[in-house]
Amino acid sequence: MFKIGFIKLGNIATSLAIDLALDEIAERTDIEFKVISFGPKMTKKEGEASAELKAWGPQLVVISSPNAATAGPTAAREIFKGTPTIIISDGPAKKEARDAIAADGFGYIILPMDPLIGAKREFLDPAEMALFNADALKVLGAGGAVRLVQEELDLAMQSISKGEIKLPAILATPEKCAERMDFQNPYARAKAVGSLYMAQTVATIDAQACFRLKELEPIALAAAAGHEVMRAAANLADAAREMEKALDTVSRKPHARSGEPMKKTRLLEKPERI
Amino acid sequence: MFKIGFIKLGNIATSLAIDLALDEIAERTDIEFKVISFGPKMTKKEGEASAELKAWGPQLVVISSPNAATAGPTAAREIFKGTPTIIISDGPAKKEARDAIAADGFGYIILPMDPLIGAKREFLDPAEMALFNADALKVLGAGGAVRLVQEELDLAMQSISKGEIKLPAILATPEKCAERMDFQNPYARAKAVGSLYMAQTVATIDAQACFRLKELEPIALAAAAGHEVMRAAANLADAAREMEKALDTVSRKPHARSGEPMKKTRLLEKPERI
Amino acid sequence: MFKIGFIKLGNIATSLAIDLALDEIAERTDIEFKVISFGPKMTKKEGEASAELKAWGPQLVVISSPNAATAGPTAAREIFKGTPTIIISDGPAKKEARDAIAADGFGYIILPMDPLIGAKREFLDPAEMALFNADALKVLGAGGAVRLVQEELDLAMQSISKGEIKLPAILATPEKCAERMDFQNPYARAKAVGSLYMAQTVATIDAQACFRLKELEPIALAAAAGHEVMRAAANLADAAREMEKALDTVSRKPHARSGEPMKKTRLLEKPERI
Amino acid sequence: MFKIGFIKLGNIATSLAIDLALDEIAERTDIEFKVISFGPKMTKKEGEASAELKAWGPQLVVISSPNAATAGPTAAREIFKGTPTIIISDGPAKKEARDAIAADGFGYIILPMDPLIGAKREFLDPAEMALFNADALKVLGAGGAVRLVQEELDLAMQSISKGEIKLPAILATPEKCAERMDFQNPYARAKAVGSLYMAQTVATIDAQACFRLKELEPIALAAAAGHEVMRAAANLADAAREMEKALDTVSRKPHARSGEPMKKTRLLEKPERI
Amino acid sequence: MFKIGFIKLGNIATSLAIDLALDEIAERTDIEFKVISFGPKMTKKEGEASAELKAWGPQLVVISSPNAATAGPTAAREIFKGTPTIIISDGPAKKEARDAIAADGFGYIILPMDPLIGAKREFLDPAEMALFNADALKVLGAGGAVRLVQEELDLAMQSISKGEIKLPAILATPEKCAERMDFQNPYARAKAVGSLYMAQTVATIDAQACFRLKELEPIALAAAAGHEVMRAAANLADAAREMEKALDTVSRKPHARSGEPMKKTRLLEKPERI
Amino acid sequence: MFKIGFIKLGNIATSLAIDLALDEIAERTDIEFKVISFGPKMTKKEGEASAELKAWGPQLVVISSPNAATAGPTAAREIFKGTPTIIISDGPAKKEARDAIAADGFGYIILPMDPLIGAKREFLDPAEMALFNADALKVLGAGGAVRLVQEELDLAMQSISKGEIKLPAILATPEKCAERMDFQNPYARAKAVGSLYMAQTVATIDAQACFRLKELEPIALAAAAGHEVMRAAANLADAAREMEKALDTVSRKPHARSGEPMKKTRLLEKPERI
Repeated sequence: MFKIGFIKLGNIATSLAIDLALDEIAERTDIEFKVISFGPKMTKKEGEASAELKAWGPQLVVISSPNAATAGPTAAREIFKGTPTIIISDGPAKKEARDAIAADGFGYIILPMDPLIGAKREFLDPAEMALFNADALKVLGAGGAVRLVQEELDLAMQSISKGEIKLPAILATPEKCAERMDFQNPYARAKAVGSLYMAQTVATIDAQACFRLKELEPIALAAAAGHEVMRAAANLADAAREMEKALDTVSRKPHARSGEPMKKTRLLEKPERI
Repeated sequence: MFKIGFIKLGNIATSLAIDLALDEIAERTDIEFKVISFGPKMTKKEGEASAELKAWGPQLVVISSPNAATAGPTAAREIFKGTPTIIISDGPAKKEARDAIAADGFGYIILPMDPLIGAKREFLDPAEMALFNADALKVLGAGGAVRLVQEELDLAMQSISKGEIKLPAILATPEKCAERMDFQNPYARAKAVGSLYMAQTVATIDAQACFRLKELEPIALAAAAGHEVMRAAANLADAAREMEKALDTVSRKPHARSGEPMKKTRLLEKPERI
Repeated sequence: MFKIGFIKLGNIATSLAIDLALDEIAERTDIEFKVISFGPKMTKKEGEASAELKAWGPQLVVISSPNAATAGPTAAREIFKGTPTIIISDGPAKKEARDAIAADGFGYIILPMDPLIGAKREFLDPAEMALFNADALKVLGAGGAVRLVQEELDLAMQSISKGEIKLPAILATPEKCAERMDFQNPYARAKAVGSLYMAQTVATIDAQACFRLKELEPIALAAAAGHEVMRAAANLADAAREMEKALDTVSRKPHARSGEPMKKTRLLEKPERI
Repeated sequence: MFKIGFIKLGNIATSLAIDLALDEIAERTDIEFKVISFGPKMTKKEGEASAELKAWGPQLVVISSPNAATAGPTAAREIFKGTPTIIISDGPAKKEARDAIAADGFGYIILPMDPLIGAKREFLDPAEMALFNADALKVLGAGGAVRLVQEELDLAMQSISKGEIKLPAILATPEKCAERMDFQNPYARAKAVGSLYMAQTVATIDAQACFRLKELEPIALAAAAGHEVMRAAANLADAAREMEKALDTVSRKPHARSGEPMKKTRLLEKPERI
Repeated sequence: MFKIGFIKLGNIATSLAIDLALDEIAERTDIEFKVISFGPKMTKKEGEASAELKAWGPQLVVISSPNAATAGPTAAREIFKGTPTIIISDGPAKKEARDAIAADGFGYIILPMDPLIGAKREFLDPAEMALFNADALKVLGAGGAVRLVQEELDLAMQSISKGEIKLPAILATPEKCAERMDFQNPYARAKAVGSLYMAQTVATIDAQACFRLKELEPIALAAAAGHEVMRAAANLADAAREMEKALDTVSRKPHARSGEPMKKTRLLEKPERI
Repeated sequence: MFKIGFIKLGNIATSLAIDLALDEIAERTDIEFKVISFGPKMTKKEGEASAELKAWGPQLVVISSPNAATAGPTAAREIFKGTPTIIISDGPAKKEARDAIAADGFGYIILPMDPLIGAKREFLDPAEMALFNADALKVLGAGGAVRLVQEELDLAMQSISKGEIKLPAILATPEKCAERMDFQNPYARAKAVGSLYMAQTVATIDAQACFRLKELEPIALAAAAGHEVMRAAANLADAAREMEKALDTVSRKPHARSGEPMKKTRLLEKPERI
């Protein structure tokens, strides 16, 4: 049994699906999960508190959070130095910062298309928060980001099982995500790529609302604009998938009970080992 | 600082947002979270393993999972007898079963509109899983289920803080959920109610795929039909919210830094204490 | 010339198209129609008044109405005992009730996806009634229910012409209806199935408005919710057909001038005898 | 009890709802209906056969059919000269032809927006026929044509009851139909008007398919184009109604049990006598 | 270098793209353009002022304007008698008028689907004008009118280069336009044809607003209805193109650097000389 | 009569509407237009050729083009130094470059939301070019960019007429554009802002296709993705306007015959002098 541990600090939409994506029908017999989180909190205190996962003896640790360069995620990383650990976050996007993470022996997948929410009391409430995450999850799921994470975690676990640890070092781009979905129709792929770029635009807009603007009206307006673009991105991602459905060429990659990767393309065909 | 602990066994869409919904911008100063999960797994073993949350001394425990009548959630409940604990699940829907839970001193919120996923390898893969959850979260967020849970947990925490423990005993219906959203436009409310009924229909369809059908083709077709209805429900829920946007009457209920409930209705107005 | 008589008591959406479906361009030379109705009325009085069709000497009688177990349709059935007669209705759904109808020598097609309208003065007016029927007809037409009825009536007439009377005994399910449309794309088929399930959900919601609720507000809200789901179901059924159009694989089954069944699949190909 | 008789020769979409529109919840106690039809057939033979309605002694006869200038409807009119009779049809549109009908003592409502179907075996089958009627009914219902007919028939019955027979002489235009719906939002009204014009365009396109073109491909293409415009018109009519829903200003005009006209505007208000 | 001159008098949507359509990426090395316009003005004065293009020595002149029978375009034509000149306009539609133009030696392409805008101050402002042109351009671009113009101008230039002047004499119909787009899916083609018919309907509606109606309310309502139909037509044209995208069969006909016509069908294939 | 001259070098979507926007119904009696263009060409040669406009004696010259920093537009500017001239372009976006333009005495309006087209032969053909411009024009028209340009040109002309020349120096942002549309509904405004940000994202994506990528497949895919985002932006801009229609609060600013600015808000009200 492979022991994989997750530390979720604060929230990005990827975090919502990250563990579920490894065993989507809860039938794998080769893997054990442990997930620790402190809900929305992600300060240094929570980063440090994540140390308690260590006692469980995870073979791979995944730390997912917004901006991995902040204090909480940084504190958590310190603790797991030495344990195979993969950072999943929407940043840092800068190469040097990512290289520093890699230099410390961590794997990483940076997903700039998992955007900052419009996190201001003037706009956000629990319902709006849920809706934003729903839209983001749609883009990530249909556009290939969820699969990219799934495949890389599966590969990392395999490498650890074989004793040849290999961790990902990936700055995800819209193109790289969409490639994973094996779109047969290039227009569907273009829609997916477009929706992922739109998600990146959301981050820019929401950053204004969260960090730069100071007055109620511009904050509420910017946050609302960001969430409108997120919703439009979800619609475009959905259209990409509908286009593949129209050709019955949706690529599916479920896990076998043994954990092995499988795939199928036509809805009424059986999944097969890859 | 109020200590609230979450045990997430397996996944329902509500679980994705349940802790985040209590502190949506991560600025509350009156509350501490601890969340334990075993990813998709929810057998008796995981139910028992959730015991480790006890050491933290939570003042309120929330156990969210699919069908609370199954072994895992039941085992978890046993452990927290005596601690104020709320069960959140899509079932059991039967009155006697719910009464038994209440008789054991547990609070509960049963949400039949948080539907079973089409959990068969013949259909589901991580991407499809993410998309289904996105659609479900949209319905729950726009239709009022997320708010119902948020408000009830907030009330329960207040009651505990005051020393007069009062836990919810709610079988959520589409009407009860929609009521929480304070729709100003009755057609928007009707759309929300309709989308929640559709989500309940999804459960019926997916249950066939998961439990009754045995052949590849009918399974894949039924699961696909269930997910199509889920997607249509998300669209209808989205239309409900757009209709409220059209009147600038979207009800928002953010938390103050102190944790107190606030509300606002017009986008460009300030949230105020309720 | 085959003489087929129709008695339409009250209204279900199927009734709107049932006779037209047997001779869609009014060119068949082998069939004569007579249709009697009393508009919206369907009490025992109208059931009995339908006796006047007898004098015309129909070889097959079709009695279409809401719930065939009510007094009007029951009275009409009494009259045509002995004449080959097919009952078309949205109920009764219970097996015993259907068996009793069959035991009396009647054929039947029960269509639970032809749902009860929100028939309360607090909500329904002639325009809303027309719109609901439009949506229902869209689901029934695109989802295969219209074809199921058409094919079964055609078969029954053939059997009578040959002197080997064989009447249908069918409880239509979403799956059985969709099967008749020969969808080439399984996602289109799943959408059709989903839309038919949604139509069944409408019946549940509208039944509350019609029979259980007593106050203006809940009645209007429930009826409106039912009609919203009906509209969403029409949109999903429409999407199913658009998906088949996208592949140019829409199955069409027109009647030859002689009444024989024909079929075509590609838009620009000729229909051919089956 | 007012006795109103309907003769439906062949089909126009208005015919589907015409009797139901007078007693939409089947509770009026002041009116009796009798409807005779010959299904899709509408030749002179059927026109003459409609004579049998006379024996019932209707106080008002409504003859609905495609183009009232053809042999069948003309024959039917002959029979009911002397009985108060209203012609409902999509034509003739020419003033002289309509004046001739009026000169014979008949009332009429000509609805050019109830368009000719693409009635060619190369394109139409029962499912397509149902779908076209669904779209047409949507336009007529949301755009005000159904209400215009309803109100005019109600007025005619009242006039007859009072002994001062007054029958309508109306060439319905998009503007006149939309006026009946009491749209509060002028853009909704413009959408309704636009959708009715589009329905008139459908008639032009389908007439080519039915009467002018001779080859399979142009026929199928023209009929398909006509039906696509019909579907687009239904969508626009639907958008008109959604816009009124957004303001909670949908005008509803149900019948009281006594048959009196009622009206309501807000969804959650009671209908009141006009 | 081929010298082509354009005189744009007033505006039709085709004018917006007409010169750009001959060198869409501005890389042709065989052609030189000169375009003269007087903005929205198109009276006789501007028609005459267009004489100044003569000095440039164009080998082909294209005069585009609304109704070519009005004074401005007529004056312009007079000036270029003798120079190869093509008239592009939405009218005159009458055969004799077109024949007269041809008899004077001019080529013409009349596009009744490039409709009159709702040009009344009671409705139109610059933003609305831009939106109407956007919708019209969508229909013309997706429906084949832009390509028809492009191909005919390319052919005319080739004929002039070869010294065998041949100018078009085309009354564009929806069918002729759509044919140019080489739709592979006949339903996509039917949608395109339908959208072009709808555009023609717009002209009828807007003509009422512009020329017949006198009161504010009917004018604003008619103009709004016309623009709603234009918008619906754009949506239908868009759906036509999406359907071709779904099959990856969008026909593209770019120009080579040398000006030669090229074509490609699959998105990821190279364009090739025709 | 005010003489305004336009030099359109190459194309941006704003150019399509820029002159028409000053006299949308061609009835102004106070203004004369002259427009010169060289179609798609915009090299130094065309820049210099624009000198011929000088002879006409324009009181204000507007030079619109893609990136004003390139050779063609720069050459044109040189020529009109001394004449009141406004540059309208999508760039340069950098402050220093804009300041240099202002320092030379030119006014400018830089519109980064009027994005670069996917100008590669591997993707673009005349039809696709028209469709992209249609989508861009929709965003610019509904989002307020067209109005910003219109109002600024009107103001500049007024200032010149009064002898107090004042030219704009504006880097348009999404927020500044949307502000001009006087949205009453803040969600509509947020949608407009969002759509303008999306248009800016298009520029980024298309720039890759045009300048950075070298292989057919990535070029075609990137260009297609850019155009998909443009189309999604048009849909979002359209939704913004529909939302204002729903409240009958669309702001319209037509020109009086005298050229004075007018405005109206409700569809059925008269425009009035501002």
